Amino acid sequence: MSGNKAVAYKEPGVVEIINTDYPTFELKDGPGVNPANVGRKVPHGVILRTVTTNICGSDQHMVRGRTTAPKDLVLGHEITGEVVEVGPDVEFIKVGDIVSVPFNISCGRCRNCKERKTGICLNVNPDRPGSAYGYVDMGGWVGGQAEYVLVPYADWNLLKFPDRDQALEKIMDLTMLSDIFPTGFHGAVTAGVGVGSTVYIAGAGPVGLAAAVGAQLLGAAVVIVGDMNEDRLAQARSFGCETVNVSNGDPKDQIEQILGVPEVDCGVDAVGFEARGHGKDASHEAPATVLNSLMDITAAGGALGIPGLYVTGDPGGIDEAAKHGSLSLSLGTGWAKSLSFTTGQCPVMSYNRQLMMAILHDKVQIAKAVNATAIPLEDAPRGYAEFDAGSATKFVLNPNGYVKA
Amino acid sequence: MSGNKAVAYKEPGVVEIINTDYPTFELKDGPGVNPANVGRKVPHGVILRTVTTNICGSDQHMVRGRTTAPKDLVLGHEITGEVVEVGPDVEFIKVGDIVSVPFNISCGRCRNCKERKTGICLNVNPDRPGSAYGYVDMGGWVGGQAEYVLVPYADWNLLKFPDRDQALEKIMDLTMLSDIFPTGFHGAVTAGVGVGSTVYIAGAGPVGLAAAVGAQLLGAAVVIVGDMNEDRLAQARSFGCETVNVSNGDPKDQIEQILGVPEVDCGVDAVGFEARGHGKDASHEAPATVLNSLMDITAAGGALGIPGLYVTGDPGGIDEAAKHGSLSLSLGTGWAKSLSFTTGQCPVMSYNRQLMMAILHDKVQIAKAVNATAIPLEDAPRGYAEFDAGSATKFVLNPNGYVKA
Amino acid sequence: MSGNKAVAYKEPGVVEIINTDYPTFELKDGPGVNPANVGRKVPHGVILRTVTTNICGSDQHMVRGRTTAPKDLVLGHEITGEVVEVGPDVEFIKVGDIVSVPFNISCGRCRNCKERKTGICLNVNPDRPGSAYGYVDMGGWVGGQAEYVLVPYADWNLLKFPDRDQALEKIMDLTMLSDIFPTGFHGAVTAGVGVGSTVYIAGAGPVGLAAAVGAQLLGAAVVIVGDMNEDRLAQARSFGCETVNVSNGDPKDQIEQILGVPEVDCGVDAVGFEARGHGKDASHEAPATVLNSLMDITAAGGALGIPGLYVTGDPGGIDEAAKHGSLSLSLGTGWAKSLSFTTGQCPVMSYNRQLMMAILHDKVQIAKAVNATAIPLEDAPRGYAEFDAGSATKFVLNPNGYVKA
Amino acid sequence: MSGNKAVAYKEPGVVEIINTDYPTFELKDGPGVNPANVGRKVPHGVILRTVTTNICGSDQHMVRGRTTAPKDLVLGHEITGEVVEVGPDVEFIKVGDIVSVPFNISCGRCRNCKERKTGICLNVNPDRPGSAYGYVDMGGWVGGQAEYVLVPYADWNLLKFPDRDQALEKIMDLTMLSDIFPTGFHGAVTAGVGVGSTVYIAGAGPVGLAAAVGAQLLGAAVVIVGDMNEDRLAQARSFGCETVNVSNGDPKDQIEQILGVPEVDCGVDAVGFEARGHGKDASHEAPATVLNSLMDITAAGGALGIPGLYVTGDPGGIDEAAKHGSLSLSLGTGWAKSLSFTTGQCPVMSYNRQLMMAILHDKVQIAKAVNATAIPLEDAPRGYAEFDAGSATKFVLNPNGYVKA
Repeated sequence: MSGNKAVAYKEPGVVEIINTDYPTFELKDGPGVNPANVGRKVPHGVILRTVTTNICGSDQHMVRGRTTAPKDLVLGHEITGEVVEVGPDVEFIKVGDIVSVPFNISCGRCRNCKERKTGICLNVNPDRPGSAYGYVDMGGWVGGQAEYVLVPYADWNLLKFPDRDQALEKIMDLTMLSDIFPTGFHGAVTAGVGVGSTVYIAGAGPVGLAAAVGAQLLGAAVVIVGDMNEDRLAQARSFGCETVNVSNGDPKDQIEQILGVPEVDCGVDAVGFEARGHGKDASHEAPATVLNSLMDITAAGGALGIPGLYVTGDPGGIDEAAKHGSLSLSLGTGWAKSLSFTTGQCPVMSYNRQLMMAILHDKVQIAKAVNATAIPLEDAPRGYAEFDAGSATKFVLNPNGYVKA
Repeated sequence: MSGNKAVAYKEPGVVEIINTDYPTFELKDGPGVNPANVGRKVPHGVILRTVTTNICGSDQHMVRGRTTAPKDLVLGHEITGEVVEVGPDVEFIKVGDIVSVPFNISCGRCRNCKERKTGICLNVNPDRPGSAYGYVDMGGWVGGQAEYVLVPYADWNLLKFPDRDQALEKIMDLTMLSDIFPTGFHGAVTAGVGVGSTVYIAGAGPVGLAAAVGAQLLGAAVVIVGDMNEDRLAQARSFGCETVNVSNGDPKDQIEQILGVPEVDCGVDAVGFEARGHGKDASHEAPATVLNSLMDITAAGGALGIPGLYVTGDPGGIDEAAKHGSLSLSLGTGWAKSLSFTTGQCPVMSYNRQLMMAILHDKVQIAKAVNATAIPLEDAPRGYAEFDAGSATKFVLNPNGYVKA
Repeated sequence: MSGNKAVAYKEPGVVEIINTDYPTFELKDGPGVNPANVGRKVPHGVILRTVTTNICGSDQHMVRGRTTAPKDLVLGHEITGEVVEVGPDVEFIKVGDIVSVPFNISCGRCRNCKERKTGICLNVNPDRPGSAYGYVDMGGWVGGQAEYVLVPYADWNLLKFPDRDQALEKIMDLTMLSDIFPTGFHGAVTAGVGVGSTVYIAGAGPVGLAAAVGAQLLGAAVVIVGDMNEDRLAQARSFGCETVNVSNGDPKDQIEQILGVPEVDCGVDAVGFEARGHGKDASHEAPATVLNSLMDITAAGGALGIPGLYVTGDPGGIDEAAKHGSLSLSLGTGWAKSLSFTTGQCPVMSYNRQLMMAILHDKVQIAKAVNATAIPLEDAPRGYAEFDAGSATKFVLNPNGYVKA
Repeated sequence: MSGNKAVAYKEPGVVEIINTDYPTFELKDGPGVNPANVGRKVPHGVILRTVTTNICGSDQHMVRGRTTAPKDLVLGHEITGEVVEVGPDVEFIKVGDIVSVPFNISCGRCRNCKERKTGICLNVNPDRPGSAYGYVDMGGWVGGQAEYVLVPYADWNLLKFPDRDQALEKIMDLTMLSDIFPTGFHGAVTAGVGVGSTVYIAGAGPVGLAAAVGAQLLGAAVVIVGDMNEDRLAQARSFGCETVNVSNGDPKDQIEQILGVPEVDCGVDAVGFEARGHGKDASHEAPATVLNSLMDITAAGGALGIPGLYVTGDPGGIDEAAKHGSLSLSLGTGWAKSLSFTTGQCPVMSYNRQLMMAILHDKVQIAKAVNATAIPLEDAPRGYAEFDAGSATKFVLNPNGYVKA
């Protein structure tokens, strides 16, 4: 029990499996740990043996070198695990429980947590509200793409699955509860999706596909997904979405062909700041493309859910404005239509229980929708590479063999 | 065009087809017309040739003689039609449009209509807020179980289907938009049903089945329907519901067998004041049974949607309290659990457009769920009788042959 | 520090000051402690030196002998205190903090707490969801009408005042945050009170007056308070409410005289199951009076907030129905108007922070509105007696001399 | 009755009183009338004799020459009037009624109106959703800064005051119901202002002051108003607001001095696209200043209400981006804090009734807060000039002498 193999960021484009220490109930110094968090005691935490841990598109921002992530930062914020040790303050979570970990770390004791705003907890990240495992500038909580991981405030943070066998049977679906399923669902909810809505989702990566599934689960009449990756669009069509290839031009015309009108009720941005242009501009980054397009496409009175990440600074941005996180937005277009906009991390805890119920009762097949594929921990570098190359696959790491072939 | 065959209430247990006048743009004196409404000009109305008009459970209260409905009252508040004449003030609805008529009549001009509370419009019923076609004490607007019917405030009230051919093709589903689909859906919405909810619906008549469909459309994880009519329960199972036969006793135990816990998140009362007891008491009326049972069954923090009708007086009630509309409710049971309760007519206009979208895009099969069956207008007496006898059928009258075999 | 003087229930009509043990971080056996809670460890708790602790109307149900409260039960669930000891698991609350204690005890770790439903926490009361200090059948947490009191799950439960001196200066207002101000406010919120509303509040006791203050804070246009106690009505008038003396008859006519119409937008029941009749029936209990009256008075489309307590059994009830907690309700009256109803304990944590802000910034004078009066702990028996006799006073016990004359 | 004096736009910086035709129940050709609206019949309209009609900040965009408004466009969308003629389709509004006209023109018959989204009605402006009286590119409905004005869809659009004498007595308050009071209130509501909130409002013009009054009415604990015009800031202080002079630098530091923290819960943009910079940049336009500042100032989890106008094109903009309505927004700042944003015209009808109630029952003094000052119609040019020069005054035109000195 002395070691803990983990996936670490090495340098732009490179991740490697490294050996790290088995976790204890203390946040020790290490790559990316905020000095104010070093030595923090975690008696309220549990140690998990990782059941599954997924590679996320937002990890790619770090791996591509678009952030200040330090060498040897252990990655991974999409974690499902089995409890193997509980801290002395843990009361309700027990050894042997199979649990989903919301990627947002939250304390369950601050004003924001009490208001269910667990994406902006005030007590876990010394720099700002909000935190996550294995992510640059998020406080330094060690990532979960590893054999074992420490989860603080376990009674608050963890979602326990009601039955171990059932959980392991549906693990490829349940593993999506830690991030992308709630995140996509939040995008749909904040876009105002309801029964009978027409929806356009920009981006057919895993979050976009999860938003599409979420929109269907909310009763949408038509879900249209846009991307320029045909494999990902095919994935969207596989579960009943309409699709638009934005490399063929502005989505407006294609939407009109589908719906008879060039507008939708609800728009979701599942792309974020690394957006590329549409049509002939599809080959280069144009960070405001998606938001400007969604304002154009969304009907008056509609709403935009924006789970796609926008940053305050992007050293790798295409120009000075992008480097400082400034976007050139046609806000007047949205204003004339009385649009509203919701940004930010999904507060996973607001949704994971209800989405778990939908999975356990077979109301939704999220694993199939995002083409979830389990690979050994050792294959993480390949998973990162293929995902970055546009594979229409959600890679699920399987560090301890819980996922059977 | 001088006549207009219609279904009329004659006496307890008897409905007949009678000949009435073809409507004009004025509300003329007749059976059940409120004196204050006699002579009311309706330049804002349209005359519809009826496409479909359904027999509703709430019509049965009148037909059974449980109300003061007068002889020759023309029945029918579930109406879909083709516009054949438009009044001089109608601006957007056109001759030839195929339209759904919300059973609530509303003016679109009073405080309540402006607040979307179309079930309690202040301007259409001289006696109280709220009105309906062909219903006792609702102002006297003539019922639509007829070849032709007048619809006031047509620009406001009518939902136009986007395409005539598509509408006629899906007419057996779309006909449910005038009442039971929105009414059942409203029951589910006000019971707090959302993605992942567990739901118990008391009553497997058409409204209860529509509530079940609505709950599924809202993403419920498990929908359980209770009744004592096995045919209706079989109907519920046909589209994926769990069922409970309340003649076998209190639903609590049966719910526990299904869910593992004896409680649901959300409760819907689709029965109303003519409820009968559970278990050995199933043979006689016990008007508070359903509400008391739902308070028992619904988990703390839950909500009850109550589309089932409760009345202010019931001359045919089983005892003095029932005759005065008093129910003996264990409110403390609900209070201890912080339950909330929503009563009243469904404001159809709040839901019909979105449910139409779900139908037109094949997200829901409401006709199949409620076993919709078209019969000629002339067969209305048989439809009333069979429905009253417990047939698991929603009868759709077809007065002008729009519905093809 | 070995003793702890406290107010205890002795027998119907009698409370006394008794000597009890100074609290430790364990729930020990004692009067009214649920066996399943005996020996429960409370490392997450703090011990407070009581700053103020108020006598509440719901305590009177016990003191009048209307419950099964055992002899020597220490009373008191309205607690403000200074932290004198913190358990080992407490991270953010510190010795010396001045804090308000929500009367609902909650764990901050169960499904309901995560959904902000702290009035129905699943982990603190072995019998049912929801708990409170010093209350019969609520798990056995020791009451706070004492010099010292134990508060579990302190990081979650406590609201810390930002500044000690400011807190002590405004202590007579802030002491109302533990129960009646949020409870009354919740009544107003769930009755749908907003800017411009007309509101009727049944009951001018402290909760009714707090609901009136809450309604004003929410922007109500007119707040009408009904009672049969002229001193309490005078108290309501002192801060701008209109009043109705229900011993003069049904409130409907008096409301019409005030508003020009016999209806209000919003109704609040701040009386509960010990209601008496109106007019000539005012001398005897009639438990359904208030709810039936509110259904009559509240306009179609309105809502009823019901903070007044209704019980599942009342051994002292006036008849068999009342003894079993059954109320004879004219639900049809409410149904015809599409009313909605919200019952249950106020989840204090959902409101106390914002109401604290309103107090600290002088937007509200709740102490003056309810005529808050500090008395020594030793005078608690007199306080109970005077309050029960109808004194228009909210008694605030001052066990440790924090409140200066 | 053949003439109708009115205020017209002549050229940049110039408005004049002109003689126009007395209105009829038809929208005739004239300056700015959309060709598709020419000849439109208005049997559902009424003709008002103007009681009051206010000069609005958004009129100034036209008068400054920042739009394509044509010569002789009659201005004025803030209208209160007495009904002098009713069209044949009008049923509930009567001659002699004193009414408030929402500045948004809406039909009461389209999908958006049925959803209460009256700011984006689909049937009144051939160019796009949404319309207003006397405004460029809004369909051509003639402005109300005139002796008489036509109001279409009168039963739907008009808010009738309950009593004529009372209305005329409070007319200087009630006149604000047509636009700025609801608009400011909507800004506060969409910024999430509730009881206990801390609020920052950018802009102390009439809409900003109305937002401040609205925030107070909603129970805000602290309302801070920022501007660079000391007279307007003094006006804000006159009713209890804190103030920040942004010409002294970024508001963040000044907010910290007031609140002890550099953040507020809620932010309102009552400035819009003609914003100027802060501090040393205060002398020139910088259209994204206010929004970027609000993202910086508003705490994580907060919301921004944006009643300030943003346009799709601004020929007078400071640079190419501004000319095309592009704003350089640091959206990442908002994203990191999970902020939400609501833009667009206020749907006046959603608020005017409740705000009228607050005025009639003396819960608010909006006229005093915005320093409402009545002037003759003939003095409109002076009013425009003084308002443009920064006078802390809301000018109310009094064309027919209803407002007594």
